[in-house]
Amino acid sequence: MVAFVFAYRGGDGRRFIESLRGLRVLCVYVIGSTMTSTIPGISIAGATPKLTLYTPAVDVEYLVLGKPISIDSIPVTPEGIPTPAVITRAVLMASSTPFIVVDAGSYIEPRIPHVDLPSRVVGGRIDSGKALDYDRVKSIYREAVVLGKSLLGVADVVVLGESIPGGTTTALGIMVALGYSAWGMVSSAGPRNPHDLKRRVVEEGLGKCSNLPTRDPFKAVACLGDPVHVALAGLLGVAVDEGLRVVLAGGTQMAAVLALAKALGVSLEGQVIVGTTRWLIEDESSDIVGLVKMIAPEVPVVGFNYDFSNAPYPGLRYYEKGYVKEGVGAGGTSIAVTASKNLGYEVLVKSIYSEYGRLVEKR
Amino acid sequence: MVAFVFAYRGGDGRRFIESLRGLRVLCVYVIGSTMTSTIPGISIAGATPKLTLYTPAVDVEYLVLGKPISIDSIPVTPEGIPTPAVITRAVLMASSTPFIVVDAGSYIEPRIPHVDLPSRVVGGRIDSGKALDYDRVKSIYREAVVLGKSLLGVADVVVLGESIPGGTTTALGIMVALGYSAWGMVSSAGPRNPHDLKRRVVEEGLGKCSNLPTRDPFKAVACLGDPVHVALAGLLGVAVDEGLRVVLAGGTQMAAVLALAKALGVSLEGQVIVGTTRWLIEDESSDIVGLVKMIAPEVPVVGFNYDFSNAPYPGLRYYEKGYVKEGVGAGGTSIAVTASKNLGYEVLVKSIYSEYGRLVEKR
Repeated sequence: MVAFVFAYRGGDGRRFIESLRGLRVLCVYVIGSTMTSTIPGISIAGATPKLTLYTPAVDVEYLVLGKPISIDSIPVTPEGIPTPAVITRAVLMASSTPFIVVDAGSYIEPRIPHVDLPSRVVGGRIDSGKALDYDRVKSIYREAVVLGKSLLGVADVVVLGESIPGGTTTALGIMVALGYSAWGMVSSAGPRNPHDLKRRVVEEGLGKCSNLPTRDPFKAVACLGDPVHVALAGLLGVAVDEGLRVVLAGGTQMAAVLALAKALGVSLEGQVIVGTTRWLIEDESSDIVGLVKMIAPEVPVVGFNYDFSNAPYPGLRYYEKGYVKEGVGAGGTSIAVTASKNLGYEVLVKSIYSEYGRLVEKR
Repeated sequence: MVAFVFAYRGGDGRRFIESLRGLRVLCVYVIGSTMTSTIPGISIAGATPKLTLYTPAVDVEYLVLGKPISIDSIPVTPEGIPTPAVITRAVLMASSTPFIVVDAGSYIEPRIPHVDLPSRVVGGRIDSGKALDYDRVKSIYREAVVLGKSLLGVADVVVLGESIPGGTTTALGIMVALGYSAWGMVSSAGPRNPHDLKRRVVEEGLGKCSNLPTRDPFKAVACLGDPVHVALAGLLGVAVDEGLRVVLAGGTQMAAVLALAKALGVSLEGQVIVGTTRWLIEDESSDIVGLVKMIAPEVPVVGFNYDFSNAPYPGLRYYEKGYVKEGVGAGGTSIAVTASKNLGYEVLVKSIYSEYGRLVEKR
């Protein structure tokens, strides 16, 4: 099985992947909440709209401990399909890869050791046009930069992942606020991508925030964003400055991180890829490559070539039907781990099946 | 200038130091508070007993940002002599060494990015014999272990430092509760070490906690300890398990960490040193070497050979008169940085003088 799908800038993507061999990887998962995820229909990253607020904290509790603490079950879609953190956890465990969780604004404090940004805050509904206070956005950004400067240099490669339900909608908001016509291009955790609803929510917010589009990344986030993407942009900028390689581990949300980084003047060429999953790349309801081409055409897009068609569990086979697809850095973590440690595809898949089996048998 | 003083097990200490060359260092500073520091006369790590509760948070705010945030000045003794975090900050900056702060129970949340242990809590006065809830002690320990397992493997060498005013008194409490006759051996941030007061406080607590001394490290901490030393013991144990080298960066408090590690069955030989300052080693009012010999005779004690006799600032010259001596990992950080990066003594001292000059001119 070929582990990687080179979806955009294949030559550069291959060179990047090859350059990771033997390097030291640190994975950073930034979590946060936006009240946008409670708008019915926006997010299926939780059994109910209200429960989506708990998903980031419970995702990382499960990631770290193998079980949820704050509520009694791991995050699932309304259909019962589990969080992609299953993949991330299995891959981290199989490879003993160091990682840390950063809270940029989780609705509840995760009950695991995690980095707190002092200005962390839950984002407001972006249809209000007032997602976050402008100064707060800047503080979150600055704190992410401070964290990045003090910590990231210990590694050679930084994987940046996220968990924020409603995140593709706020990503759309950020991109649109920065002047990109990203309509209809962001992905969804479900097979039916609610593009019309996402557009309505973003357009409503857009109408309530003056002087948009803007070149000011902090204003874009303050109007139509959330605490997570701006924190990721801060970490990305520092990592690039320090000469590290960065895998932006996520789907179309990472295009919003690229858009913020561009607005901040971060030089992306040669040091950064978007690392995601084949499911995301092949998704017909979204366009990760189109977004990256539009925003940061110098950045390769690489997918990890998971195939769960023959998985022994129905929950995992649903991934082949357009459910979940990506999240909690699942694809990019798999890419960085495989490339740096030369671990085989089969090792990762075996670990995922075993981890998922453990979960199913526990129920 | 010879950078190191080999105070105990010189041959092993030298070999350890030499083995650090070229390795990757991560410094971890664990902060927390104990109400013990508010007992008048116990701690001078703050301008008043009450202000000692703010010292850990402000120490790390200053460490990270170069200025205090939560209160308007950096921690000083009642005489106005500044925190040893000045040394630590200057050394970290001069060497670009990665580091992270862990809050195990600070009285206030530091306004910098930091790792929170979910069970963090301020310790009670140990003269009550009830410093902490027993289950809480275990949770803090477990969370430190979880953090260590997920993060420390990114480095080769871990430096463990602390900031907890009243910490030598709780360290004495922990050692005595574990059956060591450590009376009169712990150090103080002032030239007049209040041994009689420390003994009275510990003995009062000892009388109120049943079945002491104990072999149970969690009980020792629950009766007479604090949140910081047990968290450090958890991190130490994981680091050793993962095959890392560890510099316990502190003075006599690190003997309490060794005592906890011993009780937890951690194997210390060859992987661990106590790294401190010459001031601490030469201090006549305490006995770091005696404590280590008694508790973990396999662990070398190394001091960084700072000499501020000719410092251009009176505040630093006070270090030569028995003030401050150690704290916030100052000595051990200097040792690890010098040994791993082969940085000269003069580079560090120049950076410290310059950092201190910046502070003085700001006032």
